[in-house]
Amino acid sequence: MQLTRGADYAVRIMIHLATLPENERVLLPALAAAANAPASFLSKVLQALTRAGLISSRRGQLGGFEMLPRGRQASVLEVVEAIDGPIRLNVCVQHGPSCSRKSWCPAHPVWQLAQAAMIDVLRSASIADLAANASHVAVRD
Amino acid sequence: MQLTRGADYAVRIMIHLATLPENERVLLPALAAAANAPASFLSKVLQALTRAGLISSRRGQLGGFEMLPRGRQASVLEVVEAIDGPIRLNVCVQHGPSCSRKSWCPAHPVWQLAQAAMIDVLRSASIADLAANASHVAVRD
Repeated sequence: MQLTRGADYAVRIMIHLATLPENERVLLPALAAAANAPASFLSKVLQALTRAGLISSRRGQLGGFEMLPRGRQASVLEVVEAIDGPIRLNVCVQHGPSCSRKSWCPAHPVWQLAQAAMIDVLRSASIADLAANASHVAVRD
Repeated sequence: MQLTRGADYAVRIMIHLATLPENERVLLPALAAAANAPASFLSKVLQALTRAGLISSRRGQLGGFEMLPRGRQASVLEVVEAIDGPIRLNVCVQHGPSCSRKSWCPAHPVWQLAQAAMIDVLRSASIADLAANASHVAVRD
């Protein structure tokens, strides 16, 4: 049971972008260095963040990736879910039609509580706050 | 990011066994019915629970699976980890040598907190308590 490596990279990228001044664009190699991640792997992550409306990408000489206001306000949960989809602890608390056993299964409330506890932490951590606390020197392009 | 189906079955099996009188043995088909799980899949789950010292298995006419005192006292976390191994939210909080980024990575404390919140819920839920609260009628062999 693990969040993907891509989600972990995405959070580090978002924190890095949130440390930069508004409208500053960063090229992929600089983002890869800041997130300590292989550039080849990051393309898909950046596409997903763009699709989710958290960052924008621009081609050309003045191109690069840029934080959007929605991304700056995002929680860690939103960033993770932009990459991995909805977080579910196990199939018992899956999205969609409810588990047919839940009316009698004594384990169901435990799965729900454990999932909610984890999600609450990720929801209450904002990218902006983490960027403000970041002690590392931001790598710029 | 999900606990496996096997872990989910294991918790249901353990709760069922904990509803039975001490020393009562149950055959695999009855456990499969109680856990609402395919018998073929359960063999591996039952082997893992036996290896972990949570249940015992006996062959022959009076054979079957039986709860051990350690299993009765186990938490949901112990049962899940008997099947899935240590629960880790992502590679950042993996077992073994610590993440080399953790001294500066602003995301690290969030992963740690989220993992701890989830694990705390699973650790504080005991199989015995869940069995005591179980409202369903135990399926016997």
